[in-house]
Amino acid sequence: MTTSRPSTLEALRAEVEPALDRALPTESAWPETIHRAVRYSLFAGGKRIRPVLALAAGEAVGGGREEIMPLACAVEMIHTYSLVHDDLPAMDDDDLRRGKPTCHKVFGEAVAILAGDALLTRAFHLLAAMPPDWDETRIRRRVQATAVLGEACGTTGLIGGQVMDLESEGRAIDAGSLETLHRAKTGALLSACVRGGAILGGAGEASLALLARYSAAIGLAFQVVDDILDTTEGAEQLGKTAGKDEAAGKATYVSLHGLEGAREMAAALREEALDALGPLGPRGERLAEIARLIVDRHS
Amino acid sequence: MTTSRPSTLEALRAEVEPALDRALPTESAWPETIHRAVRYSLFAGGKRIRPVLALAAGEAVGGGREEIMPLACAVEMIHTYSLVHDDLPAMDDDDLRRGKPTCHKVFGEAVAILAGDALLTRAFHLLAAMPPDWDETRIRRRVQATAVLGEACGTTGLIGGQVMDLESEGRAIDAGSLETLHRAKTGALLSACVRGGAILGGAGEASLALLARYSAAIGLAFQVVDDILDTTEGAEQLGKTAGKDEAAGKATYVSLHGLEGAREMAAALREEALDALGPLGPRGERLAEIARLIVDRHS
Repeated sequence: MTTSRPSTLEALRAEVEPALDRALPTESAWPETIHRAVRYSLFAGGKRIRPVLALAAGEAVGGGREEIMPLACAVEMIHTYSLVHDDLPAMDDDDLRRGKPTCHKVFGEAVAILAGDALLTRAFHLLAAMPPDWDETRIRRRVQATAVLGEACGTTGLIGGQVMDLESEGRAIDAGSLETLHRAKTGALLSACVRGGAILGGAGEASLALLARYSAAIGLAFQVVDDILDTTEGAEQLGKTAGKDEAAGKATYVSLHGLEGAREMAAALREEALDALGPLGPRGERLAEIARLIVDRHS
Repeated sequence: MTTSRPSTLEALRAEVEPALDRALPTESAWPETIHRAVRYSLFAGGKRIRPVLALAAGEAVGGGREEIMPLACAVEMIHTYSLVHDDLPAMDDDDLRRGKPTCHKVFGEAVAILAGDALLTRAFHLLAAMPPDWDETRIRRRVQATAVLGEACGTTGLIGGQVMDLESEGRAIDAGSLETLHRAKTGALLSACVRGGAILGGAGEASLALLARYSAAIGLAFQVVDDILDTTEGAEQLGKTAGKDEAAGKATYVSLHGLEGAREMAAALREEALDALGPLGPRGERLAEIARLIVDRHS
């Protein structure tokens, strides 16, 4: 029965790389500059948590890879676009990302802005490019997952969170506002990975409700752990400038609850996520593994 | 029989404004800053050529407004996003657009980058948000039109053209390269308006081929006339900095062919566009009017 076991996270991750490669024009495609910049940022060594999450959510409800992989690629492109734009001098002004110079440091600001635009555009283009022989059910699911992603990336999700983040710099911010900010900036896209993957896999309402609880918990846990690592790890481990939030006067879960309080919060969110997965049984095992990975990671 | 006459361009344009308004969160929606910036740029007095083109193309093949209006809104959002990003200090560094301070002048660079991102995201979100009672045919057409738009806005279209434009500054560029540049930067999106509108209207292959000829001609004509106006009109007429291309050492149709040569080229392209519309008969009349408008405009 070993062949029917769900894919390991490593196996899922290994499938994402060639799929991303196929989803983009080659480096030598015209105009080369933009394709080099897009590939530089997309293949900079990301952990692929979002695509793996989408694939695992789809698998948990019995979906096939062909339906879900374009979403997996799209969410990683969108995540990367948001990093490229957030790193710009006009935004967070970061020089390092995943241990390498940021896109604008290598290609200049103009090309970095366009590389972000290109990744965002390609993500939605990819989702609209369906095989002509697909039946109505598959098309409807893809459209529904695209709408979920569009909402998550918009002004009440990813973009709204970044605006709020910029506006909160150097200001006192309470725990409620910090949670609103991160639910938009980090949580919305992570939730869309899970919900979108599940929709593509054909999930019913009951499974979607369980997975919504799961993704809300891991979304918040992700940010709490980010804040903990920003305090405890150096630039070498993080691959980006460390202690930056504190220097910028940004409120974090550590500044609000202390290091120990933040660690307790992360552990409680992990348990909440695992609890939500309970009714899915063994099929939820990959998602459980991701929840543990998010909370116990060191970079 | 007056009720069966096709809509006038003014009537089409008047329908676009409230549709765009409905397609965006209000100014007071959270977070306000981004919604104010998005609306500032989207309602800055654009001529709405792209949405009107999409509506007229759909009408020319017998399509209904409900199917086509979301595309009309999406193309105007995408056009506006491209202007907001092109105007940034790292790109063309423009202070004026349509006679008003550019987005980054009013809201700052960070918010302007995010406002462009938000318009691009909202455009694709809008196209994915279909009424649940739509039948398979309508859904398939919408998906197909979205894929056409995605291609047009990507690295071989809108974004590729902007990269090529940045790279060609201050360099000698021949007529062939200039045409490649503008077919990507301006032509691809204009073509997608026509092709997308026609697909949504249920056009057959024969009509699509005619409209492809039409849109290739008006796309190029649009840029030739832009170059003519940049030479002959002042900032007041244009609502943006005049003579900027010349100052930046950019090749234009005027610098390549002279003012008279450029005018002859624009007129020939107008005739090519009208010729392509011939077989459509009276139903192509609005598209013909747009071709004349593009060539004979003064700003």
